[in-house]
Amino acid sequence: MDTLTVDLGDRSYPIYIGDKVFLDNGLLAKHIHGKQVMVVTNTTVASLYLDDLTAVLADFSVVSCVLPDGEQHKTLEVLNQVFDRLLEAKHNRTTTLIALGGGVVGDMCGFAAASYQRGVNFIQIPTTVLSQVDSSVGGKTGVNHVLGKNMIGAFYQPQAVFADISVLSSLPPRELSAGIAEIIKYGLIQDEQFLLWLESNMSALLALDPVALTYAIKRSCECKAEIVAQDEREGGIRAILNFGHTFGHAVETDQGYGNWLHGEAVAVGIVVASVLSEKLGWISMADVERVVAIIESANLPVKLPQNMTPARFLELMSVDKKVIDGQLRLVLLKKLGEAVVTSEVDWKTVVQSIEFCQQQH
Amino acid sequence: MDTLTVDLGDRSYPIYIGDKVFLDNGLLAKHIHGKQVMVVTNTTVASLYLDDLTAVLADFSVVSCVLPDGEQHKTLEVLNQVFDRLLEAKHNRTTTLIALGGGVVGDMCGFAAASYQRGVNFIQIPTTVLSQVDSSVGGKTGVNHVLGKNMIGAFYQPQAVFADISVLSSLPPRELSAGIAEIIKYGLIQDEQFLLWLESNMSALLALDPVALTYAIKRSCECKAEIVAQDEREGGIRAILNFGHTFGHAVETDQGYGNWLHGEAVAVGIVVASVLSEKLGWISMADVERVVAIIESANLPVKLPQNMTPARFLELMSVDKKVIDGQLRLVLLKKLGEAVVTSEVDWKTVVQSIEFCQQQH
Repeated sequence: MDTLTVDLGDRSYPIYIGDKVFLDNGLLAKHIHGKQVMVVTNTTVASLYLDDLTAVLADFSVVSCVLPDGEQHKTLEVLNQVFDRLLEAKHNRTTTLIALGGGVVGDMCGFAAASYQRGVNFIQIPTTVLSQVDSSVGGKTGVNHVLGKNMIGAFYQPQAVFADISVLSSLPPRELSAGIAEIIKYGLIQDEQFLLWLESNMSALLALDPVALTYAIKRSCECKAEIVAQDEREGGIRAILNFGHTFGHAVETDQGYGNWLHGEAVAVGIVVASVLSEKLGWISMADVERVVAIIESANLPVKLPQNMTPARFLELMSVDKKVIDGQLRLVLLKKLGEAVVTSEVDWKTVVQSIEFCQQQH
Repeated sequence: MDTLTVDLGDRSYPIYIGDKVFLDNGLLAKHIHGKQVMVVTNTTVASLYLDDLTAVLADFSVVSCVLPDGEQHKTLEVLNQVFDRLLEAKHNRTTTLIALGGGVVGDMCGFAAASYQRGVNFIQIPTTVLSQVDSSVGGKTGVNHVLGKNMIGAFYQPQAVFADISVLSSLPPRELSAGIAEIIKYGLIQDEQFLLWLESNMSALLALDPVALTYAIKRSCECKAEIVAQDEREGGIRAILNFGHTFGHAVETDQGYGNWLHGEAVAVGIVVASVLSEKLGWISMADVERVVAIIESANLPVKLPQNMTPARFLELMSVDKKVIDGQLRLVLLKKLGEAVVTSEVDWKTVVQSIEFCQQQH
């Protein structure tokens, strides 16, 4: 088992990475401070792991809340089901909420924990690659609104994260690839050595090699933890984590949450941002081709949907959190392994890049 | 104008108390950091003060969100209307939300500010006595759930509070009295001198004497600020602010939000807690009579509703935030001017006190 500490002062917490790590009852119990526990999960994950987890929590008073599976259910209405269940079970402010599932479950359970009685304990057991490398670090929680993704939420840190490698074997291949999109992102935004490693080890990751997976997840969490420790509430540098996300969110919103996986939308968003970086003269066309190649090698999409007009992109991007007072701020690549936030982009270049990414490469 | 600072480290903020204080555009602008402003208010307050406030904000891009008036609308569904409005108006994370109204508007607007894009700027213009002395200090925000009051929310501090004395003249007498219930609470829990002052000045307060009102509001905010500064997230001492609230919340929940005003429910809750304190031998029956007398002098109720059985109280109190792992914790009076949190109360004595307070005094 590997352990990593996310360093956030009195909100610091450990990430345990390894095989069956969430079934270590002593380790889990160490982070539960009351008697009441609610496991928040979804229908798919519940059938696989809920019984195992409940068995490990035999010393506590445990209830579970099983949500419908999918990004389209990440709403205030479904969140309210968590509150219903907590109140029906008379859970008080010493309760601990455990998120057992992917990013949607983690985001919703985390926001429920942040908001229930104005804040209760929270533990994450992320069961997808995406949630292990992304939502397990940084404390972003929340739900979507029909007019925008992740528009309602809180910064709220867990007590601990248990990233179990063995559960990843139950992931559909499409979700595995979607998670790898975020891993590729860390290489691109801040660690060219890691990017090189990924170019050499992509087939091992896709084959679920445990050593490769453990390394990739740990290195991704380390990258993110370094950035978040500098900027917990996203006032500055943390924004580079949104590389690929501004365009990706527009795709997700337009196509309807759940039709594109988040990581798939981010993958194509990474391609657009790379094309835009090339148009600014920061990276070369060969760099763009390297970005496209690694994304394709992970079986991820590299082309924007053709039924979205550039005008539709601009409309959706103008409510994105990355837009400050009407000024478009984008995360682009200064070089492979170094991202910056910039406002030096005109709409025309953005439109050209969008159109380029709608055509065949 | 009087100014008070709530001392919470990097979350410290000023409370300005005085006549027409929210119409000082320079002072208001000092606390707005972007261009976008949304005023959240209700139908009643909007017709009185929204135009004045909008006129003062001429340098900003201002939209308003007018909610239905009343505690029964303090729900997640109505909160979502605020998010709808913010997203329709394309407000980004530099927006400032201004709560113009009483406690319900302040709680909802504050929670909206805490949650919109995971936290935006927030200014409070409380327009009732209750909200000026209570919700303007301490950062408690949130909404009710059908199974319990204030069950969903956040601790979130405003940039500044503008407590305008002149707006209190538009309050219905019943709401004025309800606000005075919380003022009486501060005297009882931590300042016997203030209690004496209130006994001498109740008629001046009810007659809206500006000097008396300013003093009472400032002294109440000071009392609360001292307690909150010691315990921002209610781990310990802050719980004494809930004096009267455990029983009061049960009354509000049972009778339906909006039928009893919050301050009315707290008033009768204060009487129950005082009776219970007497039964423990901490205060005398003469002290209880003094409590009853000052509450009656403010035209507030001193009797619990007779259609609530003690069993119903216990049921509602067991989901209250003050119950930890099944153990009832109550705020009681060691003496007039000193409250403590105690678990030394058996249910039988609680039932006796409830029954006593349902009868005529």
